[in-house]
Amino acid sequence: MNSFLDYQNEQNMSLFTDFYELTMCASYFDNQKFEPATFDLLIRRLPETRSYFLFAGLEQVLLYLKNLKFTEEHLAYLKKQGFNQQFLDYLRDFRFTGDVWAVPEGTVAFPCEPLIRVTAPIIEAQLVETFLLNTVNLQTTIATKASRVVQAAKGKAVIEFGLRREHGIDAGMKVARCSYIAGCRGTSNVLAGLAYGIPVFGTMAHSFVMSYEREIEAFRAFVKTFPDKSTLLIDTYDEIAGAEKAVAVAKELEAKGCRLGGVRLDSGDLAELSKKVRKILDENGLQYVKIFASGDLDEFRIEELLNKGAKIDAFGVGTKMGTSADRPYVDVIYKLCETMNKKGTFSPIMKLSEGKATLPGRKQVYRFKDENGNFAKDVIALADEKMEGEPLLVKVMEKGEIVYDLPSLERIRETAAENLARLPEKYKKLTNAPMYPVELSRELEALIRRLKRRLKKTEFIFS
Amino acid sequence: MNSFLDYQNEQNMSLFTDFYELTMCASYFDNQKFEPATFDLLIRRLPETRSYFLFAGLEQVLLYLKNLKFTEEHLAYLKKQGFNQQFLDYLRDFRFTGDVWAVPEGTVAFPCEPLIRVTAPIIEAQLVETFLLNTVNLQTTIATKASRVVQAAKGKAVIEFGLRREHGIDAGMKVARCSYIAGCRGTSNVLAGLAYGIPVFGTMAHSFVMSYEREIEAFRAFVKTFPDKSTLLIDTYDEIAGAEKAVAVAKELEAKGCRLGGVRLDSGDLAELSKKVRKILDENGLQYVKIFASGDLDEFRIEELLNKGAKIDAFGVGTKMGTSADRPYVDVIYKLCETMNKKGTFSPIMKLSEGKATLPGRKQVYRFKDENGNFAKDVIALADEKMEGEPLLVKVMEKGEIVYDLPSLERIRETAAENLARLPEKYKKLTNAPMYPVELSRELEALIRRLKRRLKKTEFIFS
Repeated sequence: MNSFLDYQNEQNMSLFTDFYELTMCASYFDNQKFEPATFDLLIRRLPETRSYFLFAGLEQVLLYLKNLKFTEEHLAYLKKQGFNQQFLDYLRDFRFTGDVWAVPEGTVAFPCEPLIRVTAPIIEAQLVETFLLNTVNLQTTIATKASRVVQAAKGKAVIEFGLRREHGIDAGMKVARCSYIAGCRGTSNVLAGLAYGIPVFGTMAHSFVMSYEREIEAFRAFVKTFPDKSTLLIDTYDEIAGAEKAVAVAKELEAKGCRLGGVRLDSGDLAELSKKVRKILDENGLQYVKIFASGDLDEFRIEELLNKGAKIDAFGVGTKMGTSADRPYVDVIYKLCETMNKKGTFSPIMKLSEGKATLPGRKQVYRFKDENGNFAKDVIALADEKMEGEPLLVKVMEKGEIVYDLPSLERIRETAAENLARLPEKYKKLTNAPMYPVELSRELEALIRRLKRRLKKTEFIFS
Repeated sequence: MNSFLDYQNEQNMSLFTDFYELTMCASYFDNQKFEPATFDLLIRRLPETRSYFLFAGLEQVLLYLKNLKFTEEHLAYLKKQGFNQQFLDYLRDFRFTGDVWAVPEGTVAFPCEPLIRVTAPIIEAQLVETFLLNTVNLQTTIATKASRVVQAAKGKAVIEFGLRREHGIDAGMKVARCSYIAGCRGTSNVLAGLAYGIPVFGTMAHSFVMSYEREIEAFRAFVKTFPDKSTLLIDTYDEIAGAEKAVAVAKELEAKGCRLGGVRLDSGDLAELSKKVRKILDENGLQYVKIFASGDLDEFRIEELLNKGAKIDAFGVGTKMGTSADRPYVDVIYKLCETMNKKGTFSPIMKLSEGKATLPGRKQVYRFKDENGNFAKDVIALADEKMEGEPLLVKVMEKGEIVYDLPSLERIRETAAENLARLPEKYKKLTNAPMYPVELSRELEALIRRLKRRLKKTEFIFS
């Protein structure tokens, strides 16, 4: 191994899958089972501390499906794992040829709503399960968490600062992307700045201050390089003394026609300290100097700080947002909802297990709005059912080709902002939010009743 | 953006950093501050539910340091961010030239112990902070969590099954790697099988069973492809009926001279069900058929299942291990501990803040064993201090070149097993484990006292 990225490139993503996807596909192949099937990707339930999801990850899903293929190295490896030559020959020419419908990134969504719907020959539809779940899980988990943090900040800037504790390289990139979608103002991740055009922000570390014998020397050294946009970290020794030294440096900058950008507090009682520091800055005519706060922040701490009247202009939020620390995953699943029967028509199917039941058939989600244009309720219906309301799933892929204008990151961010603005306040409370109403259509309900009766008989046959 | 991996390749990792690393470096450059400094990478404290760390991630850290460089695309981007041309010219020729000491991967470690020690010109040492923290955080968090799961399974096999909910592509790869280091028997991630040679495992999904009209048809179709190593998922409809159908299929296989590998339970009361299923299998002479369990498992659930006498041969552990769901990060930090002073000698430095104090000077960790060779205590000492005990930090990089034989993954896994075997049982309890003793040497204590006295004076100068 001479690469620390270990086979992470697009050509290799086809083996980024659970082994059982391949064993199932091999068995489908051996049994010549090529008929199409439909799978729903959905999130089963809301974590206790969430009241909605902010969907993200579709762009990467579509690029994965479009690029999926097996290399000779893959096939050689699979041969060693015991797959037969006919199946390997099939994989050599493998391309994803299915149709995909999905809700746009930045859409507010709720449990049980299909977010991505894949219709493809069952081998193809099965094989892609793991990557789709992995991508949507990470991005939707983070976008949802970040939207709560942005919500709590009530219009104050939130910057994503979690790179050092996010889960590896891909997470570092995607957390920056999803936090930005969710309304963060930018990220500390410079590569995400280059790759996505997200604004990047940064201040200085304690080590910088400590590398100088005197704190004020460190401040002077720093503003020399960035005379018009420096943020000085003032809590290495004593926050109040640090603030006074920042004032001195700001005055020196003013004498040169420049302006200090801000000061940062990273520890201690941020509410009290921010008030004291604001007072010191204001008394010295430095109303324009912003106060930046960081250190173990999340939506709950930010709400508490603002409730205490903290004088903070911007929040740097790291680990707890970047790992969604209180709930680092969502219950995202990928479930078979119809297969083609021997007559060549699609049959809806469902799983009955308690707590794990699935919704049968090919479905669409309709969103209903109130007279002000705010979200009132969603209805999950059969895809061919006539319904009022706005359909959320749009066709994004047809016969393996992307038939959807991939929106820019800015556009996705606007979609998220619009969606969140139209979600009534009560559903955005950080705790004890009521359940947003999601109903099943009459035809879907009727189908479920029919299938339950039939499944009871089927189970009898099975036993 | 036409790549879903968004600039994730080795050439690009130099911008995978917090913006402030670059602003600090630019300021060091403008102030011609090139003197060497030493940083310690360490974990500040144990999470409530952990009693040790299993260190992992060093291989990727060393390859990163060795490969670090800036491309013209990077420099163009940084120019747009306002960095001056002299600094960009410096970055064009940038290479990491420092010395690095580290504890080997698979070492059991404790809070405050330096795990990686970097001595380099301060610009270089500062710049690499973010990547080092990101890598060690992910891998040590997961290796530690997985070692607890393996511990709880008391010799039964644990397979890493979390790919679908791990945080993106890099996490999917590194979780497989670190779980294997920690003692898992294998992974479901096929690409990790190819990249690292880790054994891969898989069974079948509910969708496979549901895609056939009758459960037994699905079983027959599956064993046709893998007649000698199939594991049948028996809980899609009814576990007991499923077990009976697995018996029927096992008998059909026996008639052909083959053997069913196992059955899998993925829901319900796994302790009770496993006993019933074991009885059904044994009564039919299928003692060789293994019972595999999965579904929301972690170390606590596994301990509970085994305490209840569950008849489970192997555990598939997913989301909760793959995201370290109860604590998805460790408090890993990177702290300046010495700088070169104007006389050209190294001065130890430390941070005093309550709860955030750091240990000054260049240090080594010594491990002391009892008469049976088990770990008794660790002592953190100054690097040039004479000490008994086994020094844990070894030189891994000199002047930017790797001077360490990177051990194979199998060797790292053995190191982890040896370390965990020598850690007394009481420190491996899942809850309420006592604190393993980590002491400071007399010389380090004396240095801290001296610096505290001096810092009090220094703070006076600052205020």
